[in-house]
Amino acid sequence: MFWAVTYERKVRYSDTDAQGIVFNGNYATYFDDTMTDFFDLVGYRWDEVEVVLGRLEIDFRSPGRLGEILVTGARVERIGNTSFTVHLATWEKQTERLVAEAKQIQVVVDAGDFRPVPVPADLVAAIEAAQST
Amino acid sequence: MFWAVTYERKVRYSDTDAQGIVFNGNYATYFDDTMTDFFDLVGYRWDEVEVVLGRLEIDFRSPGRLGEILVTGARVERIGNTSFTVHLATWEKQTERLVAEAKQIQVVVDAGDFRPVPVPADLVAAIEAAQST
Amino acid sequence: MFWAVTYERKVRYSDTDAQGIVFNGNYATYFDDTMTDFFDLVGYRWDEVEVVLGRLEIDFRSPGRLGEILVTGARVERIGNTSFTVHLATWEKQTERLVAEAKQIQVVVDAGDFRPVPVPADLVAAIEAAQST
Amino acid sequence: MFWAVTYERKVRYSDTDAQGIVFNGNYATYFDDTMTDFFDLVGYRWDEVEVVLGRLEIDFRSPGRLGEILVTGARVERIGNTSFTVHLATWEKQTERLVAEAKQIQVVVDAGDFRPVPVPADLVAAIEAAQST
Repeated sequence: MFWAVTYERKVRYSDTDAQGIVFNGNYATYFDDTMTDFFDLVGYRWDEVEVVLGRLEIDFRSPGRLGEILVTGARVERIGNTSFTVHLATWEKQTERLVAEAKQIQVVVDAGDFRPVPVPADLVAAIEAAQST
Repeated sequence: MFWAVTYERKVRYSDTDAQGIVFNGNYATYFDDTMTDFFDLVGYRWDEVEVVLGRLEIDFRSPGRLGEILVTGARVERIGNTSFTVHLATWEKQTERLVAEAKQIQVVVDAGDFRPVPVPADLVAAIEAAQST
Repeated sequence: MFWAVTYERKVRYSDTDAQGIVFNGNYATYFDDTMTDFFDLVGYRWDEVEVVLGRLEIDFRSPGRLGEILVTGARVERIGNTSFTVHLATWEKQTERLVAEAKQIQVVVDAGDFRPVPVPADLVAAIEAAQST
Repeated sequence: MFWAVTYERKVRYSDTDAQGIVFNGNYATYFDDTMTDFFDLVGYRWDEVEVVLGRLEIDFRSPGRLGEILVTGARVERIGNTSFTVHLATWEKQTERLVAEAKQIQVVVDAGDFRPVPVPADLVAAIEAAQST
């Protein structure tokens, strides 16, 4: 599979707003929820570093609607010095209609002062192992 | 004033759902947001204990709507051995229409294992001082 | 099964707050999400009436934590004239540790003016059919 | 003032996550909340068209923390054929520390089928009037 991890969310009332569609801010949450699963998959122990979001780009392609099952996939595309880039997409499960696409730049920071630090070698290895299976 | 603290929130799209009114779960958030302000007012230092919600009762009186300014008031009504009871209400600012009423039982717990502990005497004093002004 | 419907949610960062546990307001959302599934199961067509929450009581039994899978069950307990009562519980999937219990009073309202109206006979029949399987 | 509208939000527990800082997805909500106020200011009547978010870019500059007052400003930078671009920034009120910067592309759509339509001339006029005061 192209995606390292996928996350499913059936759209419920709490996801929607008065426009009758999924509230735009909830896609950032879907992406973060997907990354929680990704990091569970990676299995890295976060003793001294944490990962925070540095940049997020979302293209909204079509509105998600009540009752739809939205699937979000994530895959790390590039690992830099102190950050890595994640490609994400959300689609409707039945029709595979594209709902949103996104790019995240995740920054590795010191758990104490939140300053960027180099991506630990064993985190790189864990990401690569998770994505090669 | 009857209320120890009041919290204002203008209803925006993020507060609403596809029924076109404020999503019911957001009132629990309004109440907790109000209590964050209450504890700021009280000024207690949370070194060894924390407060967690033990019970919440909400009566929904009328739907909140987009653009309305909802005011939530909170007042501690009774301080027990390991918990205290808070009375809350939410109303629309212009018309004073009642939107929701609530009761919270806040439980003081050990910051380590989350087990109930006696309400510290200086927290009792701080609450009483905050409410007598 | 005792529950008419169950809803699973793995706890992710978006569910938690700075106390390190599931934010209390999110349980109201879990309950509403579960009821969205319940009404899907019931299959009632909401042309002229809607259902809004009239009262919510939650007892918080133990904190939900990051990575846990929380299961919420719902069952309609009593159908009255213009409302019905729902019993809900949330537990941790692996250990079956009780996390929260709740009671909702759901009120049937006119879709136009949100005033209570009698529970339609075919909604009663649909709920009873859904719960007898 | 450079900004057409500013929106203040004191950070409360509901804004944070288990990392102890504002949950990243909440910035998308702050931006949308700010735009709700912007459209209130503009005073356009949304009979036949609606506005949906087409693209969102966020640069996270420093973590927002519990108790801080975060101010978000918004200003429309460019009005195109079927969309307009909004520049947003969030800073901490006391220190003016930059917390996040963002760009939104807001798309004007038909209220029925959510397809892009030209920005109505009176909406353009309303935005320009709101920003020239």
